Amino acid sequence: MARVGIVGFRGYSGSELVRLLARHPHVETVLLDHRSDAPAAPAPLGAKQLAKASATGESVKAGKIGLIFLATPAEVSMELAPVMLAAGARVIDLSGAFRLGDIATYSRWYRETHTAEGLLAEATYGLPELCREGIPGARLIANPGCYPTAANLALQPLIAAGVIDRSAGIVCDAKSGVSGAGRGPRLDTSFCEVTENFSAYAVLDHRHVPEILMVSGIAEAELSFTAQLLPIHRGILETIYFRARSVSKASDLVDIFAKRYKNEPFVRVYADAVPNLHGVDRTNFCDLGVRFDPASGRAVVVSAIDNLVKGAAGQAIQNMNLMLGFPETEALL
Amino acid sequence: MARVGIVGFRGYSGSELVRLLARHPHVETVLLDHRSDAPAAPAPLGAKQLAKASATGESVKAGKIGLIFLATPAEVSMELAPVMLAAGARVIDLSGAFRLGDIATYSRWYRETHTAEGLLAEATYGLPELCREGIPGARLIANPGCYPTAANLALQPLIAAGVIDRSAGIVCDAKSGVSGAGRGPRLDTSFCEVTENFSAYAVLDHRHVPEILMVSGIAEAELSFTAQLLPIHRGILETIYFRARSVSKASDLVDIFAKRYKNEPFVRVYADAVPNLHGVDRTNFCDLGVRFDPASGRAVVVSAIDNLVKGAAGQAIQNMNLMLGFPETEALL
Amino acid sequence: MARVGIVGFRGYSGSELVRLLARHPHVETVLLDHRSDAPAAPAPLGAKQLAKASATGESVKAGKIGLIFLATPAEVSMELAPVMLAAGARVIDLSGAFRLGDIATYSRWYRETHTAEGLLAEATYGLPELCREGIPGARLIANPGCYPTAANLALQPLIAAGVIDRSAGIVCDAKSGVSGAGRGPRLDTSFCEVTENFSAYAVLDHRHVPEILMVSGIAEAELSFTAQLLPIHRGILETIYFRARSVSKASDLVDIFAKRYKNEPFVRVYADAVPNLHGVDRTNFCDLGVRFDPASGRAVVVSAIDNLVKGAAGQAIQNMNLMLGFPETEALL
Amino acid sequence: MARVGIVGFRGYSGSELVRLLARHPHVETVLLDHRSDAPAAPAPLGAKQLAKASATGESVKAGKIGLIFLATPAEVSMELAPVMLAAGARVIDLSGAFRLGDIATYSRWYRETHTAEGLLAEATYGLPELCREGIPGARLIANPGCYPTAANLALQPLIAAGVIDRSAGIVCDAKSGVSGAGRGPRLDTSFCEVTENFSAYAVLDHRHVPEILMVSGIAEAELSFTAQLLPIHRGILETIYFRARSVSKASDLVDIFAKRYKNEPFVRVYADAVPNLHGVDRTNFCDLGVRFDPASGRAVVVSAIDNLVKGAAGQAIQNMNLMLGFPETEALL
Repeated sequence: MARVGIVGFRGYSGSELVRLLARHPHVETVLLDHRSDAPAAPAPLGAKQLAKASATGESVKAGKIGLIFLATPAEVSMELAPVMLAAGARVIDLSGAFRLGDIATYSRWYRETHTAEGLLAEATYGLPELCREGIPGARLIANPGCYPTAANLALQPLIAAGVIDRSAGIVCDAKSGVSGAGRGPRLDTSFCEVTENFSAYAVLDHRHVPEILMVSGIAEAELSFTAQLLPIHRGILETIYFRARSVSKASDLVDIFAKRYKNEPFVRVYADAVPNLHGVDRTNFCDLGVRFDPASGRAVVVSAIDNLVKGAAGQAIQNMNLMLGFPETEALL
Repeated sequence: MARVGIVGFRGYSGSELVRLLARHPHVETVLLDHRSDAPAAPAPLGAKQLAKASATGESVKAGKIGLIFLATPAEVSMELAPVMLAAGARVIDLSGAFRLGDIATYSRWYRETHTAEGLLAEATYGLPELCREGIPGARLIANPGCYPTAANLALQPLIAAGVIDRSAGIVCDAKSGVSGAGRGPRLDTSFCEVTENFSAYAVLDHRHVPEILMVSGIAEAELSFTAQLLPIHRGILETIYFRARSVSKASDLVDIFAKRYKNEPFVRVYADAVPNLHGVDRTNFCDLGVRFDPASGRAVVVSAIDNLVKGAAGQAIQNMNLMLGFPETEALL
Repeated sequence: MARVGIVGFRGYSGSELVRLLARHPHVETVLLDHRSDAPAAPAPLGAKQLAKASATGESVKAGKIGLIFLATPAEVSMELAPVMLAAGARVIDLSGAFRLGDIATYSRWYRETHTAEGLLAEATYGLPELCREGIPGARLIANPGCYPTAANLALQPLIAAGVIDRSAGIVCDAKSGVSGAGRGPRLDTSFCEVTENFSAYAVLDHRHVPEILMVSGIAEAELSFTAQLLPIHRGILETIYFRARSVSKASDLVDIFAKRYKNEPFVRVYADAVPNLHGVDRTNFCDLGVRFDPASGRAVVVSAIDNLVKGAAGQAIQNMNLMLGFPETEALL
Repeated sequence: MARVGIVGFRGYSGSELVRLLARHPHVETVLLDHRSDAPAAPAPLGAKQLAKASATGESVKAGKIGLIFLATPAEVSMELAPVMLAAGARVIDLSGAFRLGDIATYSRWYRETHTAEGLLAEATYGLPELCREGIPGARLIANPGCYPTAANLALQPLIAAGVIDRSAGIVCDAKSGVSGAGRGPRLDTSFCEVTENFSAYAVLDHRHVPEILMVSGIAEAELSFTAQLLPIHRGILETIYFRARSVSKASDLVDIFAKRYKNEPFVRVYADAVPNLHGVDRTNFCDLGVRFDPASGRAVVVSAIDNLVKGAAGQAIQNMNLMLGFPETEALL
């Protein structure tokens, strides 16, 4: 039985971790209190309570907690990751703090000072389907962003196969449910502002862009990325447009995905349909589908995930399974 | 006082016509019953009832109804337009029946037989901001599709100004509220299928594509258009991507719109923001905003309308105002 | 042309006032800035701007603003109402500050100190259909709460007619859209907490209860009132249960409403249906419907309003029309 | 390994059965095709398919399917239940066909002819917490209605304890998500009719009423029940009002629930809060909370379930677990 801790367990990603880990047969969860937590909700009489401790190095050592999930904003992650590592725990960080390899890129896109710069080089980017190798032995995992997860699982195999005419540019029109913005109250994520609305934000300028460039190997000038807010709780759908080359029919593109993800339990490929958000709701799947016009080479790939599962907590547990030697799909199917 | 009739007054576009015309000081509305109407909803005691008649040539003549709105499916419009014209009325058709100039294009995209082919050549495309000229004298107006209205108001001025590098292609990622699908019950527009979902349909293959090509003067191979279903009642937002040329900053693109639409009461241009759907809800506005990266030439234009107003009933009344010599904004501001 | 000012014009009730007054032919609106305002949203190029001033007595005097709407929280209304009255303006307050006739009742239900106690006795409760008399000459109007508006329009005529067996108690199960909670960001009104949810709050203990008791003449022990949050933007529906006496069929109850509201333009009565929220959306109507079981005397009345119109801004304008001698329905039909 | 079949596996309750049974370690699911099924959705490449057969007695015998879930409309259940029983299978019917003990009650409330009247007497009402006894040995289970499940779990213990003053009447104001209406397309459950709306239906006249009377032992004249449609996918919340007697504080009512459900894994009682729908989403729990005013005896109980789980598929599996000797919570926690 592995003891793992969660900081930020009342946030959306954190409570999703709690929900999913409840089904894990080899893991015991400890909730780690932090000053940034929201107040507790009422519990029913006789409810079984998970173990609790405070999010400090001492508690972690005393509680023999071997792995910590930081489901916290980047500034809290930068504060706690060094502490937890020093206390001997391994860390999976769900924030953006450690995803970008160098301080210059971080500073440009996050426009914040990095307070744990020394860990940037050590952190392993935890997208198992595309960079599995370093994960089992990692001490610090940077769990991927939600938008880049959906984008890279679609784009990286196509870039690698050389079937995208990059000179014409790639468009990634991304739409996300509101939980991606976190649980802190804000005017722009309040119910009345979001319901019956749809809005674009961070057009061409989203901080998740460098993760896509880094993993798929695209130049910034080649990618137009727009993030948009859907009036739903959870789910990300990205509609990706490009001109294909060396491809004569839709199934050529489908085959690239089918071969690449043949042994991957969490990527599903549709032969003759495009996915929607209901299909991935509360799952760790990334669903991919393709449309193609042979006459002009216009191609569209649709990529769908649940932002709180494959885009956050589910992928974090997938990484944990790999780090701790459990079956990769444990608690996730 | 002009007497105008509405066929399909219980559908979403039709009831929007009723709602908007109630504020028109120079128009008296007659509801024209048709066999395809949904059953009536209960009315409160003492409610004022609009005049009613049946949707036949005789009623129209007898009632001296000079102009008819057909808020009906294409097949009903093809049946009724010739009848109403023969009865001496002018017609504004909100369906797709008469929008495309020739039978070959219609057959290819609508995959249906056209039963009033003779009227195709006569019909005037009623998008006042871009083709105002023929509207006042028209006998038969083809009221534009909702998606093409938002797309053409964004694209046509840019194409005309030569600032789009068409060789790299244009992407129009379009999202619509559910009312665009009409009021007839269908599984794919039922509440449980749509709520907390988002899905693409008719990818690269939507019947509104030829209207965009026709008005903006783009070749089919240059445009990638995807229609997608938002879990909201009303509103269309289109995110349009292209590589700009002969342009050095965002305001160059804004200026093109600002000049073009200077005297247009229903197109609003944002200098430094992109529009959302709340801003156009229940209005006849089309809102336009721009993002641009000077280094790479990547440009994004966001175009937003209410699909039931500027995308249907509002634009139809705008056309009616022009045809009958009323101020263009009457009942619409 | 009357000059009227709005404090709180960026809140939900305040911006509804702006929207509705834009159609009023005899009123010129001045936006009155206050330190509690949210930041401004971007405006399109060339947008017509309303006049602006600051929410102080000097501005009001200088601007010859004769009537002020306070669309502000109670504590701001208690601060500004005396100031505005002293500056010579009449005041319509949309908060709960001046609705209850005495300080003891206010203190018990609002659990706050009243800082303008001296105005409690002077304030006139502005529910025109039930207490029209004092409104035209009033200096300070307490615009009714949203829940009490729907409840009292249903209950007061029935209590007055003596057809409710009060010994068996009256249940008012009330459901409201989220805009009733105001525009300030809060966890419990954030999108992810509300969507696909439904929750009761302030069960038996809502601060709107004393308004119902006061206007309908019911004792506290006779009324069970529960407020509940609907995952919608706007609308209040109340399902009211009681045992009827001296009544033998549903139409006896309908007739009481029909007679009482015969000349009221904003109350609609259904003979054989119960209303829903779409029917009153963005209108100043209160819709009433009845179900009755003659065998047992069980009766249900459904009352529906738009909480931002008849429950706030619309009713405030109705009061303004009466105070300034305009037709009661001006800008509201 | 028990082989169980599902008829209606593409409906909302049926697909919930499929989802939940996928986690059951002792059950193998067979999908039984029926002419009333909706068309299949596209499946990803390489998806594992469940076994399929047709919904006939021969298939059931040949496939050695020992238990059948009928997730079908009442008329299909009346047709198939006798066939499946004759083929040697046990049946859990999720429709209303066999819930009411006698034909007169069925005819009055369902207003349909019963075509399998002979099975009415044999059917066992499958609400384990209140009538557990007959379930393990039953051949035909009538799985309870969604509204009655939430109502009876709240009301039966209170009625049994004698703490409700029945002479004053009981009000059950019930609200349901749209999935309760089934998956067949209908105008009144289409997205645009439901979103941003709330409506009452079957006021005082819902066919689920006799199930509440039967199980809780209430007379029809004592209960006012209203069903209402929430703009959400799933969930039922009922707000239940009564005058309490022999009770002096809220905890007296809480204690009745706490004692009664002490050993029940699926009923949760809150000491000082009322439940909401997020708390029971996708669970088999029924959550109960209480508010009480000692001065007047007014009491409110809030009962919340997921209509597709505890109100349908989850409860059906709970019944199956009892019938087949599996732990009651298998696949449900």
